Amino acid sequence: MSTLGNSTNIFWHECPVGNHERQKLLNQKGCVVWITGLSGSGKSTLACSLGRELHSRGKLSYILDGDNLRHGLNKDLGFKAEDRIENIRRVGEVAKLFADAGLICVASLISPYRKDRDACRAMLPDDNFIEVFMNMPLELCEKRDAKGLYKLARAGKIKGFTGIDDPYEPPLNCEIEIRQKDGVCPAPCAMAGQVVSYLGRERIPAISMIYTPSIHVL
Amino acid sequence: MSTLGNSTNIFWHECPVGNHERQKLLNQKGCVVWITGLSGSGKSTLACSLGRELHSRGKLSYILDGDNLRHGLNKDLGFKAEDRIENIRRVGEVAKLFADAGLICVASLISPYRKDRDACRAMLPDDNFIEVFMNMPLELCEKRDAKGLYKLARAGKIKGFTGIDDPYEPPLNCEIEIRQKDGVCPAPCAMAGQVVSYLGRERIPAISMIYTPSIHVL
Repeated sequence: MSTLGNSTNIFWHECPVGNHERQKLLNQKGCVVWITGLSGSGKSTLACSLGRELHSRGKLSYILDGDNLRHGLNKDLGFKAEDRIENIRRVGEVAKLFADAGLICVASLISPYRKDRDACRAMLPDDNFIEVFMNMPLELCEKRDAKGLYKLARAGKIKGFTGIDDPYEPPLNCEIEIRQKDGVCPAPCAMAGQVVSYLGRERIPAISMIYTPSIHVL
Repeated sequence: MSTLGNSTNIFWHECPVGNHERQKLLNQKGCVVWITGLSGSGKSTLACSLGRELHSRGKLSYILDGDNLRHGLNKDLGFKAEDRIENIRRVGEVAKLFADAGLICVASLISPYRKDRDACRAMLPDDNFIEVFMNMPLELCEKRDAKGLYKLARAGKIKGFTGIDDPYEPPLNCEIEIRQKDGVCPAPCAMAGQVVSYLGRERIPAISMIYTPSIHVL
């Protein structure tokens, strides 16, 4: 037990079962796969598909969906600037806990600002934050409009909607970019395969066992 | 995907890999073990010991320590009444996510008010919230005073300190009570054994394999 300099009267408790022990138990290395992109770009679709792919390989993952968390942990937050920042900060903090617990934590939220995403990246050790950019054209996302939100935004019924009257800042150095090929969107399992392949090939050597040649088709 | 009535523009995403699949993968059932009690009553000691006991049985657990979280997720919160409530609410919400992920989530925080603990209990399905009351006399906790906080509270340097100038409301229907026997505190491994035994015997049938006769000594 030790005192941390900048927080009076709060102590840090070290426990003998640490993340290495949990990783060994799970036979995988915890990390955060952070999926960012416009509404309708396929973030949730990728998250679900990735969850299935990992599960089928015996890997434990958990999805933190930005929308879902707004019904629980972040239900006190709205959509004004400071609330959106706090929303992302909390998801980042929780993702960090899940990664520490040994899980492959898949965070799926628009997270439009580079600064906020980078703040989440900075919470984690090197190589444990894998940023996946759903690089889909606004026109496509708006055409899909599965939630009908673009329509509302265009009609002025939602203010500050990312891509319409609020900016989306694309990542500058993301680990993975998902985009159309010859004007065609990759299928969900192909998008997931791209992430699984990355996890097996790069930076997460401890889970290299999740890489199998059968999925290395991308 | 469906819309929830009371939250406009936020959708709920269902994913095909659910908590049952994760529980099967882990061979255990997720739950929350909520340890409550005075400062110095042994909450962190039990949490660590329990983490070790579960790990040694191949079970995945994760400790949410109230003090530790105040350096991350809850670093924006202080100790005034509404902040303490929000602190506990967030820990409850995160514990719920961990239980949903299939882990045995061990939450360790003073959580002095019955109402706040019950709100966390209400977040979870029946039988998935196991409240452990560290029923140790104030005199003992104050004598231990590992963090020197009682001394500060008695000197008036900390205001609203639980047990000194702020009340602790003992649980009325906790699942497990840890107390002295003949004036002697149980050893950490005995306290942990009491919880492990409960987890194996009651309410969490899916993890009954964690019960082994060797630890049924209490």
